[in-house]
Amino acid sequence: MNPPLTTSSAMTPALVIDEIVLDANIARMADFTASAGLALRPHVKTHKSIEIARRQLAAGAVGVTVATLSEATVFADAGCHDIFVAYPLWIDDSKIAMLRHLLERCSLLVGIDSAPSAARIVRTGLADTGHLAGMIEIDSGHHRSGVHPDEAGELAEAVQDAGLEVAGIFTFPGHSYSPTARRSAAQDEHDALSTAIRSLADHGIVARVVSGGSTPSLEFADSSVLTEVRPGVYVFGDAQQWELGTCDPSDIALTAIATVVSRSPDHLILDLGSKVLGADRATYSSGFGRLLDHPDARLTALSEHHATVTGVDLERGTRVRVVPNHVCSTVNLADEYLFAAPGGRVTVCPVNARGRNR
Amino acid sequence: MNPPLTTSSAMTPALVIDEIVLDANIARMADFTASAGLALRPHVKTHKSIEIARRQLAAGAVGVTVATLSEATVFADAGCHDIFVAYPLWIDDSKIAMLRHLLERCSLLVGIDSAPSAARIVRTGLADTGHLAGMIEIDSGHHRSGVHPDEAGELAEAVQDAGLEVAGIFTFPGHSYSPTARRSAAQDEHDALSTAIRSLADHGIVARVVSGGSTPSLEFADSSVLTEVRPGVYVFGDAQQWELGTCDPSDIALTAIATVVSRSPDHLILDLGSKVLGADRATYSSGFGRLLDHPDARLTALSEHHATVTGVDLERGTRVRVVPNHVCSTVNLADEYLFAAPGGRVTVCPVNARGRNR
Repeated sequence: MNPPLTTSSAMTPALVIDEIVLDANIARMADFTASAGLALRPHVKTHKSIEIARRQLAAGAVGVTVATLSEATVFADAGCHDIFVAYPLWIDDSKIAMLRHLLERCSLLVGIDSAPSAARIVRTGLADTGHLAGMIEIDSGHHRSGVHPDEAGELAEAVQDAGLEVAGIFTFPGHSYSPTARRSAAQDEHDALSTAIRSLADHGIVARVVSGGSTPSLEFADSSVLTEVRPGVYVFGDAQQWELGTCDPSDIALTAIATVVSRSPDHLILDLGSKVLGADRATYSSGFGRLLDHPDARLTALSEHHATVTGVDLERGTRVRVVPNHVCSTVNLADEYLFAAPGGRVTVCPVNARGRNR
Repeated sequence: MNPPLTTSSAMTPALVIDEIVLDANIARMADFTASAGLALRPHVKTHKSIEIARRQLAAGAVGVTVATLSEATVFADAGCHDIFVAYPLWIDDSKIAMLRHLLERCSLLVGIDSAPSAARIVRTGLADTGHLAGMIEIDSGHHRSGVHPDEAGELAEAVQDAGLEVAGIFTFPGHSYSPTARRSAAQDEHDALSTAIRSLADHGIVARVVSGGSTPSLEFADSSVLTEVRPGVYVFGDAQQWELGTCDPSDIALTAIATVVSRSPDHLILDLGSKVLGADRATYSSGFGRLLDHPDARLTALSEHHATVTGVDLERGTRVRVVPNHVCSTVNLADEYLFAAPGGRVTVCPVNARGRNR
């Protein structure tokens, strides 16, 4: 057990990272992608930590993926030179200075799913710095942003004609977040990217970078189409991945430590809620999170500062390790992590990009 | 419309407060509680803002309610002298220094729902400073923490015998968050508190403070039993209150401004998601939030940085005002508010107690 759990020196609730498990997760994904012939560009929205990004890059990652320009800034300022903003950016006047700041520090790939959004970027005068290129977003079945694979070539040509280089294509097979759809979503991703590559070729454009991959679909990823993958959650694992079957409880590196503060004959109350864990609950989830050391327990309700737990009875004052449903949401609520190292050493590490949503 | 919405000087996403609506909400609740003969002790977990707490106190609030000791610290350090931590605290060694810090600055009421938790407080040696008293938590039907009303007197006597003064009783009728249960939850609250008052009297203890009230049940609150109420959400309103019928869209003071970044034939994508709004979605909610200026639109899906909107078609680059489902969660994700004052002046105001979860 982690030292912060068994001593009362750390206040609960707090996020604790088991450093041995973290490093093992980073190494395993680096090995998997290297064996599969895929570049690894981890999505750092999961951990938002310069320290963890450094470990991923040291293990061979080619760069990082972020969701927003302000998130990119944190990692560019920390010396990361190769960043992909995997998001359909709309650069209005308020964001030009931030884009310029980034391009003075790193090479940037940005998501594009329409000609007008590319035109907004070109209009800034920053498209010809040699450090900026667009990635055409493809809808591979998640039906969020992105164009139909058949339309990718036409859009890529329009983007290049407008004055923005096209480096390649990307997709997020987010419909893989289902116990029965992991393999089929990977197949959808493969098919959509194959179609989009042909569509670009029909317009005389080569997709140099073909980027995909979600944590649940990743084990089915192959390099016949993809050149790189962008998993995020694998560094920590969470209750969603546990319940989807993509990680074991022993692979979970981040938990929220909590204290039992109240008891009734049929449930316990822990001193954390949605303001620590996040309120995420997928349709397949068994509750609002899991207890790492009590797998039969269920988090049946969540208020802002209360978690209702059934299926286990513990004394008031007992500390437990809570596995969040969706760790990306949990991390974005915290200002710091406790890193629990082998031998009992605990260090505090900031969540550097917390709240960087713009 | 608010200036940050119609100009591009503010980056989206951002939380904007319409100051006219905010001040009207504060005044209306102050008038309602004064007319009803109830003291008002607003729950500041909703706004986490020293500036807004000052306005509530200036309008007649007797003190503030918080959920955690660290949240209390923010308001005590800002000069608030009367604070109720409406939570079943468990004071272990890690929290003694914070409790002492608070008692040097303010009078503190703390929630108690078991004799062992009172014993933990007495054990700190801080119970006899004259600034600390317990409030017995009653379960009035929400079935979270708190004791059965019949058991209140026995617990109150045990708490006093242990050495902690009992100031009164409190409950949170959280089962009022349902379109059909607002009135019945208020009745449950009334009945449970009446029973608990008698139970204390049977043990020779007078409940000086009788504290209740949730925003949805508040209009049915009466002073025949209650002495004070602790609503929180009324300052801002949110989509839950809108859909529960406890506020009109015109009463909503806080929105998240967002930009349309992507369009498909059947939906739009806005540049915010669960990392800005929170993932809260009650069973009665129509979606993951509402658009203030497009009441027929629906937020049908929410990722971390994408909101999928149907029922309205807008050009890319258009700015909209999103009403969060549960504003307390939204505020806890943001570092700052934009205060939009009459005449177009916009000021930045910190969310002082963001992330104060311990």
